[in-house]
Amino acid sequence: MSYCFNDLKNTHTAEWQAYIAHDFVRQLGEGTLSEAAFRHYLQQDYLFLLHFGRAYALAVYKSQNTRDLRHALAGQKIILETELQLHIDYCKEWGISEEALEQLPEARATLAYTRYVFDAGSRGNLLDLHVALAPCLVGYAEVSQYLSRYEKTTRKNNPYEKWLQMYESDVFQNAAKAEIEWLDERLAQVSAERFNELAKTFRDATRLEIDFWQAGLEQLD
Amino acid sequence: MSYCFNDLKNTHTAEWQAYIAHDFVRQLGEGTLSEAAFRHYLQQDYLFLLHFGRAYALAVYKSQNTRDLRHALAGQKIILETELQLHIDYCKEWGISEEALEQLPEARATLAYTRYVFDAGSRGNLLDLHVALAPCLVGYAEVSQYLSRYEKTTRKNNPYEKWLQMYESDVFQNAAKAEIEWLDERLAQVSAERFNELAKTFRDATRLEIDFWQAGLEQLD
Amino acid sequence: MSYCFNDLKNTHTAEWQAYIAHDFVRQLGEGTLSEAAFRHYLQQDYLFLLHFGRAYALAVYKSQNTRDLRHALAGQKIILETELQLHIDYCKEWGISEEALEQLPEARATLAYTRYVFDAGSRGNLLDLHVALAPCLVGYAEVSQYLSRYEKTTRKNNPYEKWLQMYESDVFQNAAKAEIEWLDERLAQVSAERFNELAKTFRDATRLEIDFWQAGLEQLD
Amino acid sequence: MSYCFNDLKNTHTAEWQAYIAHDFVRQLGEGTLSEAAFRHYLQQDYLFLLHFGRAYALAVYKSQNTRDLRHALAGQKIILETELQLHIDYCKEWGISEEALEQLPEARATLAYTRYVFDAGSRGNLLDLHVALAPCLVGYAEVSQYLSRYEKTTRKNNPYEKWLQMYESDVFQNAAKAEIEWLDERLAQVSAERFNELAKTFRDATRLEIDFWQAGLEQLD
Repeated sequence: MSYCFNDLKNTHTAEWQAYIAHDFVRQLGEGTLSEAAFRHYLQQDYLFLLHFGRAYALAVYKSQNTRDLRHALAGQKIILETELQLHIDYCKEWGISEEALEQLPEARATLAYTRYVFDAGSRGNLLDLHVALAPCLVGYAEVSQYLSRYEKTTRKNNPYEKWLQMYESDVFQNAAKAEIEWLDERLAQVSAERFNELAKTFRDATRLEIDFWQAGLEQLD
Repeated sequence: MSYCFNDLKNTHTAEWQAYIAHDFVRQLGEGTLSEAAFRHYLQQDYLFLLHFGRAYALAVYKSQNTRDLRHALAGQKIILETELQLHIDYCKEWGISEEALEQLPEARATLAYTRYVFDAGSRGNLLDLHVALAPCLVGYAEVSQYLSRYEKTTRKNNPYEKWLQMYESDVFQNAAKAEIEWLDERLAQVSAERFNELAKTFRDATRLEIDFWQAGLEQLD
Repeated sequence: MSYCFNDLKNTHTAEWQAYIAHDFVRQLGEGTLSEAAFRHYLQQDYLFLLHFGRAYALAVYKSQNTRDLRHALAGQKIILETELQLHIDYCKEWGISEEALEQLPEARATLAYTRYVFDAGSRGNLLDLHVALAPCLVGYAEVSQYLSRYEKTTRKNNPYEKWLQMYESDVFQNAAKAEIEWLDERLAQVSAERFNELAKTFRDATRLEIDFWQAGLEQLD
Repeated sequence: MSYCFNDLKNTHTAEWQAYIAHDFVRQLGEGTLSEAAFRHYLQQDYLFLLHFGRAYALAVYKSQNTRDLRHALAGQKIILETELQLHIDYCKEWGISEEALEQLPEARATLAYTRYVFDAGSRGNLLDLHVALAPCLVGYAEVSQYLSRYEKTTRKNNPYEKWLQMYESDVFQNAAKAEIEWLDERLAQVSAERFNELAKTFRDATRLEIDFWQAGLEQLD
């Protein structure tokens, strides 16, 4: 049997759905999310992006050949150059300065997911690392697709319209597609035992992403 | 100015007290903790110990001289030989088999603290790693001392008497003392900037330990 | 196709033979090795063992399940408890004190192989790490077997008789066997692409082991 | 006492001079280096740059704050974007295709220095990593300055003129200066014990750089 990225999702459909169609996501689409929740999320997401950039740097370090290295480097650039700057600019529009972002205490949900990714990567190899990162990069692309289907999504006067645009952009969607292709290629070669190991990592990473939405919704420290 | 371990605690007194005198701890001492809460805790603590052993192994790897290596090795032995077996035996008394422990899904609070320790260690050096571990080893020794002072602690017919004995044992208390000495020696040499970095790690690790008690109390997955 | 440890050796027969039947090895068996060469080797091998112990600690850290963790732990114990003490005692017999060993500058060949192992392990997963370690643990067991077949090996009045005994001991030979079994089990599951990656690591590690013998022979710093 | 980067060099003057004014360097400046030696060096230096890029990625991962992260990221960009492409183009001029570079077996001297850097970085913290990298980035800048003073350096009809230009460029010299400043700032805060640890790393890294020149000169595999 040959595996692919969809198999990772299909092994844990309940968790994946709970993540993609989380209340935080729906309320973002509807434009009904409380400003306080969004601001909490936005600030923690800044810290998240920094760690996410560190995780892609770890992927560069762990690459065994130039092809993998260039793939990881492309991911790192999108995070630490494009996304991070977009995020800083976007925060400014919400009245959150870069200095304020720098001083931010890290919420538990941020600590939990980001550190999980690092351990998955350090303990395992490049594939374990990418699988732990997938709920974020691939997941956000899917969240964006879900919201474009979601009947209650409103794009007019939605205070979060710009956020919606950020993740439906070609740059982001294509990065997610490239990641799925990379994963498909590697997963096609793994044994059943190895797949189960990776599926466990994927599930745990997805659970921690759910917590990240939830922490936004409840403004948890 | 020269720093020591106590300075780490004094920088974050509120968090440290919230951890040492947590409701979970008090109820353990009183013998009033619900069996369900204790069983949840006991099972997650098995996973915790395995990761904790991995963290000491990381400390062995990161040691820069034989003295540090032997200190880390001693810690690893206490965890992966003494404590882990005590824990497995103790679980058996509560009707939890080793096979059941092996199949256990990892709760979020377990994921969060253990992975935080690994990242602190991989990102920083041996000192960062030991500082991230300190709330556990040193903290449990202090919890035990706190309970011996706590007026409501009862040692007669306390269903958790054996647990209380485990952490007041000389082996455990001496290991904690040796850890404090090791930290004191290193902290005496760090600059103020470096101390602040370490204090932040100590605080975050303590927060995640609080969550671990809380997850036991509420039986959170 | 299903791979096993022998396939790693068969892919690079020339290097493997150059390592197993190296002049240093033959002269050890014949008892003709110069004392200066042996003493140089013995001292560097002390540093090597310490790093080797660190590498097994890294394997403990990287283990994904308790079975792998216990296997790595057993390896670490043999190195950091049994072998290291045997080595320190043996050095004493050759007039090299533990204090002298502690002060030893590390030779290039020692730096090269040991650090290669660490990178293989950090960059890849537990299997990459064990493959990089195999030329040492499994290789020394095979060196011992080679010397018992080698027609010029002399066991009477051989100044290196004790060294020969150390590696033909059941403890050591069984550890090597357990390692081969562990590798066989994992290699049976890898794809051709993955095998080639591992074979490259195995070859480079073997080359660096050859250099370690050579550095002994020529007493290179 | 407060330390700076120069102290690292002054602790090991002999090794530092042997590296900066190595025969390989002098012959490069004189234009008398054999083409075979240069081609061997050029090819191994391609592999070196890839690992060096991985090492800067490790520095990005290990950064504890955004300032350090941006410094590491700038270094990574110079290596993996500017230098690597310059190097590939330059190799092409010498008739070495990118495909040929990809197939290159790694020489021992390349393995030794690069893996040493990774272990210094993984074992220690960001400062250990930068100290292990310094002989390369800062050293090459100093080699370039040395050659501009060296009386036998000839810039007319020197077949290696373009190489000389590469390292005297502002981009490269400024990157080296920024690295020295970064190191000066951190070294000013370390204790004597910590400085000695770092000085040992600096010395070993310098020794392995000497070997890298020597391997070029003798075309060692």
